[in-house]
Amino acid sequence: MTTTPPYSGFVIDSAQYAKWDRSVFQEMRDGGVTCVNVTLVYWETARETLSEIGKWNRLFEQNSDLIMQARTAHDVRRAKALNKTAITFAFQHCSPIEEDIDLIEIMHTLGVRFMQLSYNNQSLCATGCYEDEDPGITRFGRQVIREMNRVGMVVDMSHSGERSTFHSIELSERPITITHANPKSWQPALRNKSDDLLKALADSGGMLGFSMYPFHLKDKSNCTLESFCDMIAHTADRMGIDRIGIGSDLVQGHGNEVVEWMRNGRWSKAMDFGEGTASDAGWPDPVPWFTGNRDFGNLASGLATRGFTTEDVDKVMGLNWLRFFEENFGPA
Amino acid sequence: MTTTPPYSGFVIDSAQYAKWDRSVFQEMRDGGVTCVNVTLVYWETARETLSEIGKWNRLFEQNSDLIMQARTAHDVRRAKALNKTAITFAFQHCSPIEEDIDLIEIMHTLGVRFMQLSYNNQSLCATGCYEDEDPGITRFGRQVIREMNRVGMVVDMSHSGERSTFHSIELSERPITITHANPKSWQPALRNKSDDLLKALADSGGMLGFSMYPFHLKDKSNCTLESFCDMIAHTADRMGIDRIGIGSDLVQGHGNEVVEWMRNGRWSKAMDFGEGTASDAGWPDPVPWFTGNRDFGNLASGLATRGFTTEDVDKVMGLNWLRFFEENFGPA
Repeated sequence: MTTTPPYSGFVIDSAQYAKWDRSVFQEMRDGGVTCVNVTLVYWETARETLSEIGKWNRLFEQNSDLIMQARTAHDVRRAKALNKTAITFAFQHCSPIEEDIDLIEIMHTLGVRFMQLSYNNQSLCATGCYEDEDPGITRFGRQVIREMNRVGMVVDMSHSGERSTFHSIELSERPITITHANPKSWQPALRNKSDDLLKALADSGGMLGFSMYPFHLKDKSNCTLESFCDMIAHTADRMGIDRIGIGSDLVQGHGNEVVEWMRNGRWSKAMDFGEGTASDAGWPDPVPWFTGNRDFGNLASGLATRGFTTEDVDKVMGLNWLRFFEENFGPA
Repeated sequence: MTTTPPYSGFVIDSAQYAKWDRSVFQEMRDGGVTCVNVTLVYWETARETLSEIGKWNRLFEQNSDLIMQARTAHDVRRAKALNKTAITFAFQHCSPIEEDIDLIEIMHTLGVRFMQLSYNNQSLCATGCYEDEDPGITRFGRQVIREMNRVGMVVDMSHSGERSTFHSIELSERPITITHANPKSWQPALRNKSDDLLKALADSGGMLGFSMYPFHLKDKSNCTLESFCDMIAHTADRMGIDRIGIGSDLVQGHGNEVVEWMRNGRWSKAMDFGEGTASDAGWPDPVPWFTGNRDFGNLASGLATRGFTTEDVDKVMGLNWLRFFEENFGPA
């Protein structure tokens, strides 16, 4: 397998969460990664979110030769021209806006471009994919979607329940996303999505980012590149080649205290194991063909081997997300 | 007296604090006001400050025919071309950055362009003008000045003690400001500034904004326009015509609970009367020649009558602040 990308276009990843430091940014450069949509927070409050943005501002200042913040698709193109990796900000949950509609525009001004309306649990906006019942988008959630549409912050339903997700597609005047998940028909994880939902997502102009987090993969950490690329080909047949991209859900450098925070936040005193179990509570082992930012070339090669044209490889690897950013970051 | 400005240039006011609503913005338009630097907060925390910015975002959205947010001098010029009043954000105190250096860049990104290092009392950064002792800029304050210099947020020492103000002039690598005060030699208020301090301010490239808040005026609410313009002429002789502007300290529409908040925040259970007294605790009556945003023309006329050339009237009324914004908003 090659670590030099054979494709000519943009590499955009709609979901990563690392213990960010210069070595990770160097890996992004080594892997030719144009843009990473990074998870800023899971369960944090507005004030705590400011501190996370503050940490990123220091990272931008200290690593300005490798990375830069992107607020627009134009910034992503500029990053590519400057040989830097563009960073966009994402929330995995709506906790940072608390119960305050005004915080959406404020967080957008600070660079946040994606927000999940719920993370596994019922939120103030929508239901999470681990709840027993899904009553759909809440009263506050409807206002939140409207305001996100207005300012150009993208609705992400990766960790939401199916009914809430269908509901958000219906309510949102701009396309929504599932930045990191796979089809349930390939791997029946709670976090993966039904074919009907993915079809509705595609029909409304939305995007799916394919996850390489082992719990979302057939045979988990033993999933082959061939199986993954075959799944992408089948999904392209269902959703269309323009509605799919990469959302690796790559996690790097974090100890188990971080997966515990992701799963438990401050909402539970009893330990919740999320997609894991008590006997398998930590981070899953990555698949051997995607262990970090240097490995996007393997994926592009795998797609080419599976029969994707160069043009289609480019779309999946980044051009689809770039077009989506162009149309959905900022006021319509 | 005329309400139509006789001058040809920009009208920029470096300090106002109203109960903001459409009628105030309409008055700004009627008065030909190009830009107002508005007080966002006095004693608020970071989180509370976000809510104040949120309120402004609603005002910008609902009154987009009258006002717009300005982050640069270019925005101020654009507002003038569009017949709107540009609004810049200011903190009267450093409470919004709490004890967190990272909040300076974050607040700058949200549009804050001026921050006072202290408000009457000792702060984490500097001493206020009502304290008995003034030990100068603190350890945190030095870091704050450096960071404000880096991002292009302007240091304002209007309510600070004299030694702290001299110290900030010495420490800051970019010019500082006193956005709303007058010479103590004209009116010996605690909030007014010594001739030596104003000279040092001017020599370092800093700016003074002349206040029309009655406590800062000779004869307070009975101060004449002639006396005020005479004071400006003498100050121009001392500081130079390029270092002075208007910082009216105009307050409109607020009840006495707001002057109590300004003076007491949450720091005192006993009532502090600030520049007032127990028997004169409320807002002072405005001078008859400056009751609101429609009256800037009176001031320009008064300066012309006092012998200022048209060019110098334009400088005092706005062009000096515009040049200062050009040089000091954003990285050097």
